[in-house]
This record gives sequence, structure tokens and C-alpha cells, in this order.
Amino acid sequence: MQHLKKHFLLRDDITFLNFGSFGACVKPVFERYQKYQLELEREPVQFITVNGLTYLDKSRAALGKYLNCHKDDLVYVTNPSYAVNAIAKSFNLQPGDEILSTNLEYGACDKTWEYYCQKAGARFVRQPISLPIQSKEEFIIEFFKGLTSRTKMIFISYITSSTGLRLPVEEICVIAKEKGLITFVDGAHAPAQVPIDLDNSSFDMFTGACHKWMMTPKGSSFLYVKKELQPLVDPLIVSWGYKSMSPSDSTFLDYHQTNGTRDFSAFLTIPDAIQFMEENDWTSVSRQCRELVIHNAPTLCKILGAAPLAPLNDMFIRQLFSSSIKTSEPEKLQRYLFESYHVQVPVMRHGDKTYLRYSINAFNDQHDLDRLFDAIGDIKKKTGLVE
Amino acid sequence: MQHLKKHFLLRDDITFLNFGSFGACVKPVFERYQKYQLELEREPVQFITVNGLTYLDKSRAALGKYLNCHKDDLVYVTNPSYAVNAIAKSFNLQPGDEILSTNLEYGACDKTWEYYCQKAGARFVRQPISLPIQSKEEFIIEFFKGLTSRTKMIFISYITSSTGLRLPVEEICVIAKEKGLITFVDGAHAPAQVPIDLDNSSFDMFTGACHKWMMTPKGSSFLYVKKELQPLVDPLIVSWGYKSMSPSDSTFLDYHQTNGTRDFSAFLTIPDAIQFMEENDWTSVSRQCRELVIHNAPTLCKILGAAPLAPLNDMFIRQLFSSSIKTSEPEKLQRYLFESYHVQVPVMRHGDKTYLRYSINAFNDQHDLDRLFDAIGDIKKKTGLVE
Repeated sequence: MQHLKKHFLLRDDITFLNFGSFGACVKPVFERYQKYQLELEREPVQFITVNGLTYLDKSRAALGKYLNCHKDDLVYVTNPSYAVNAIAKSFNLQPGDEILSTNLEYGACDKTWEYYCQKAGARFVRQPISLPIQSKEEFIIEFFKGLTSRTKMIFISYITSSTGLRLPVEEICVIAKEKGLITFVDGAHAPAQVPIDLDNSSFDMFTGACHKWMMTPKGSSFLYVKKELQPLVDPLIVSWGYKSMSPSDSTFLDYHQTNGTRDFSAFLTIPDAIQFMEENDWTSVSRQCRELVIHNAPTLCKILGAAPLAPLNDMFIRQLFSSSIKTSEPEKLQRYLFESYHVQVPVMRHGDKTYLRYSINAFNDQHDLDRLFDAIGDIKKKTGLVE
Repeated sequence: MQHLKKHFLLRDDITFLNFGSFGACVKPVFERYQKYQLELEREPVQFITVNGLTYLDKSRAALGKYLNCHKDDLVYVTNPSYAVNAIAKSFNLQPGDEILSTNLEYGACDKTWEYYCQKAGARFVRQPISLPIQSKEEFIIEFFKGLTSRTKMIFISYITSSTGLRLPVEEICVIAKEKGLITFVDGAHAPAQVPIDLDNSSFDMFTGACHKWMMTPKGSSFLYVKKELQPLVDPLIVSWGYKSMSPSDSTFLDYHQTNGTRDFSAFLTIPDAIQFMEENDWTSVSRQCRELVIHNAPTLCKILGAAPLAPLNDMFIRQLFSSSIKTSEPEKLQRYLFESYHVQVPVMRHGDKTYLRYSINAFNDQHDLDRLFDAIGDIKKKTGLVE
């Protein structure tokens, strides 16, 4: 894959193993981004109120095709946190209601649900998941142990953040729909790591980041809501589109697309990113990345004296791999890896555990992981930062 | 001022008389913007979690100096709509409470307050203001006719949008504070049109756009809240900064600065915009613009057969001037002016009236206004678009 390295803007002197946090934009997409910004500044009124809206529409059409859904069932949002806030704020939670989730979710989403559940006297149920996960079937059984007669919605990550695990959300949501629950999938890490087919899924609501694995500029994400549930979702930012004087065909779009003056160029680059992936056979790139991820997983686990968090296969492992790590100072360890070894890799607390997670994308190779392993070995020898 | 025209990116073929809607960025600020974006993409993790935070802090320090307030009493927001939503959502409205405002406010803010007031059983009071305004004193008397024992907050524009009028908000807020009310000023159009001194004001809360008259890229605005009232304001987007595991010295900052992955480069250019204005003696530029605005106001009124909306002086008129216009198709008229005459000027409905508003900044001159006047004269002759 090394011929693809030239497309990235990333610094040469850093071993970049943290694609998962914020992605990294490829050159043709970044150049398109800045060209849109220049076009905006050359005639701001024409761009923001006329031409830019046409580009936005075309962009949603391209993303809708990529995700298999109607473009008007998608709205662009800054990031998945925005989408989760929009849903949590709007969802008509009653005292005693429960949102069933796992104890593996992204911390900012936990905070959001806890905030809105507390206001309503509802409960955010973080069903404990036993690690390592043994199988899809056992995961599903364990997850639904958290179900009660008060459960109204399922909220679950497609691919978890600190533990880097793909969860069987398709199956979970099929079962949840049979039980009459609303399903909301946090797919922050999903687009371009897993194929997504929204219209043929049991996902009622889905948010994904384009600025991670789809490689668009930061601040470009989407919220999908099935047509019949769209009336449930109020705008997070009330603006001209709310009770619009010149409504479009989609109230969903009016509510969520218009939210004050901003530079929405990042949204417009999504078709360019999709085209870049197609032209460079990203399905094959992603598969090669997964092979590298899985090939190196046992080594990381061995160095850290840990067991893998799930079976080492495509079902659970995509382009991220996390291992638990014994360190009392995760933030210091992460900084030390960056400053002393020029290795950018996250070391994250989650509950009472800490995880080190590597990400692999087209520009990475075996040498990058070897540098990580060598650095950890060296740190173990020289410091007390890793036990 | 024509030597300043070269600093703008605006198209040469357009007579740009709508600076008010979205501003326009100057070249050195725009270049800095895109450089920050490149720095971000060269090492996203280091930028978003380390270097960028230092730049943000420096930026708020510069803006705090410019507005005379402590940097930690300011948070950056995308736009004033975001700020108004954050306050309206957080403000603990009780049934029967009233927010006193005017009938001249920005439509998106009306919608926001009406949305949250309706939820709480509270009232958003749009006190009718007689136009033309006769004097500061009469405005103040008329405004406070809307006051009742249930009024909890004053919400008022520093400079109105469709009518383009500077209102006596300093005096209004002094009186409101004496009456024990909370004061919230929508200063979307204020920074760089009027001098602002937050710490010596009676403004409890203030939002301003930097992407309008301060000429930064789109999506850069701020919310100021006096220290003692900051605990009232919950995050509009709940994220890591809410009940933070690693809190900073300012909960206000933690709550509002962290809200998911985004490109915050626009915020970072604010010191560059301030420097640009200083280096180019923007106080004098702004004064010259106001002179041009006021000099031409009687002509526009005459052409449109309307009376000025306020006395033609610095107190009420800054770099915007609106006149009511008789047209049954404002959107079509605006489009026609742009497409047939290459004049970009807004024609806006407000209540049962319609206004045409011109803005003047450094790149404008008398010829621009002459082109507008000629175009309107021509349209009156040739079409029925203007009565």
C-alpha cells in the first residue's frame, strides 16, 4: 500500500498510529476543501445562500448512494457528538424510561445520555460486557440481559472507541426492532471501515463521522433517521429552518441543515473522498490494513501481557486494535511515546482499565508497528511507565 | 479607502453591498486560516489536543483584550445563533416567566426564544417599537412598556438585522440591571462596528460574530457571560468537558469549548484580524464608512419613497442602512438585482414590512451606491418589482 502514502499530508517524522481519533485528510480532498473556502470568500452571499446549497444537495446525494439511503434521510452534522446530543435532547424521555447501552461506549456519549436521562428521571443503562468477548452469540445474550419492560431505545457503538471492537449491531438491532424498541447506532468509526447499507438495516437512527475513516476534513459527519421517526427530532440549534417561511420538501433537512453562519465546506468534500476511495480500490486497502492489524495483535498482547479483547477475526477486529495495558499514568505514557519516540498512539482510560490502541491505514506498514513495539519494550526497560 | 480594496478576496465584477449578512474575510486572515488547517492535517492529534488548545487560549486572550474582558469569560461558538440557543436552552424558564425583547430582532433568534418559551409555558415578549425611532429617550420609554413583574431577562440586539439600527443597549441594560433583570445582548453586528467594553458594561451575557465586521472566516463567534452567571449555562453540546475528568480552571470553558471533533481554525485567526484592523487604522476606516452610509441615506429613502427609520447620526446608524421598500416579491427583486445588475444587496421581509439594506466597508465607494441607485431606478422603470 506504500504507493498511497504520498496522498496523505501527515508529517514524515511521526509514526502515526492514531488514525482512529481524528482521521487524516488526503491531499485531493484537502485541496478541494480549501478551494470551496476560497469560492465562499469570493462571494459569501451567493455561496452560502445559493451555490453552496446546491453543492450540499449533491454531496448528500453522493453520501446517500454510498450508504444506501435517500439523501433526504441524511443531514450533515459537525460530529457524532452533535448527533447524539440532537437525539438525546429531543427524545421524549419519561421518568423511569431506560436507554439500553453497553459499558464500552464513547465517554462523551455516556455523558450526554446521563445528562438528559437525569433531567427526565430516566436511566442510561450501561450493560456490563464481559471481556474478552467469546462470540457474537454470547455478546448478544449478555447485552439483552440489560433489557427491561421500561427500555425504550437501544444505543450502541458499531465500533467501540477505547476498546476498538466491532460489535454485532446488525443482529442486536434486528432483535431490538422485534421487541418494539427504537435503535440508534453510534457509527463514528464505521464508514469506510465496514460496509454500511442503511435502507436494508434495522437502524432507526445512525450517526457516522466522515472525518475519520472517510478522510474528509474535520467537522464533517452525518445523522441518518428513518423517515417515519424524523418528526421526533427537534433541531439542536433552532434557526430559520424551524417552522421555515420557505420550507423545502424535507422538514428534517430544514430543521437540521440551517443553523447559523458557518463554513460548511467540509461537508462538500464528501463526494471527493468517496471518489478517492473508489479510484484507489479502498475495499482492498481496508482488507490489507485489517490483515496487518490482526497479524500484529498477538505481538502487542504478548508485550503488554494481556489477552485479546475478542476473537482475532474480521467480525470483531477492523482497522483498530486495542489491548489493555498496565500503567498508572496513561496520559504521561502517551506523551512520552510521542515526545521521545515520535510514535503517536493513544493510551486511554476506560472505567477502571487502560487501553493502548493502534490504528492502521494505507500509509502504515509493519515498520510502524515494530517501532511501537520497540518503544514499549524500551520504556518497560528504562522507566516504570509500563508494568 | 480604496487602497484597502486589494486586501479583500471579493469578486471584482460584483457590487458587494451586503457585508452585513456574512462579512468577507481579508487575505492575510484567510491565508492564516488555511495555514492552520494544513498544520492540523499534518498532525491532527497534536493539533487538536495540544498545540491548537494553546492557540485557542492565545486567541481568547487577544479577543478579551479587544473587548475588555477576561479571556475565561469568553467562549468561542460557531455563530450567535449557537450562543442564543445555548442560553435559551439553559435558562431556567418557569411557567409565566417573560423575556422582554423588541419586534426588531433577528428572525432566527425569535424562533429560538419562542421554541424554548413555549416548552416552558413562558412568554417571549416582542415589544413593538414605533418607526421611525425619534430619540434614544423615546426608544427606552417605549421598550420598557413591555416590562411586567414576570419579566426575568432582557434580550435585545445591539444593531438590528433587517432594519440595520443601532439601539441604545447600554442605557437599556443599565436600567434593566437596576430592576434586577438579567441582560443578554445579541451583538451579532457589533464587534468592529461599535467599540465594546464588556467589563464596564451592564451586559450579563453578550454574543458577537467575528466573521462579520471583524472579517474572520465563517463560523467564528463568541459568547461572553459574566463570571457569576456562568453556572447558569449548560453546554449546548454535552461532551468531555461536562463533568470533566481533567477540569481546567474554568468550568465555563470546559462546558462550551469541548464539543466533539471540528476544525476550529477560524477561531484561531481572530488575533490576526484584530492586528489587521490595528495596522490599517480601522477606527478611521469605520468612521469613513459611516460617513458614506449617512451621506447616501437620504438618496435611498427618496428613491424608495420612504422616511429614514431613525435620526441619521452615529447613535443610530453605523455601517448598515435600511430603508423600507414597496415590493411584493422581495426574494425575486434581490435575485434580479444580482443577476441583471451584479449588485449584491439584501431585500428582507420583517413582519409585514420589507427592507432593502446596504452595508459599507473599506472596499466600497460612492460608485457602488450609485450603481445600486441606478439599478433601482431602472427596475422601477422596466418592471413592477419595485412600486
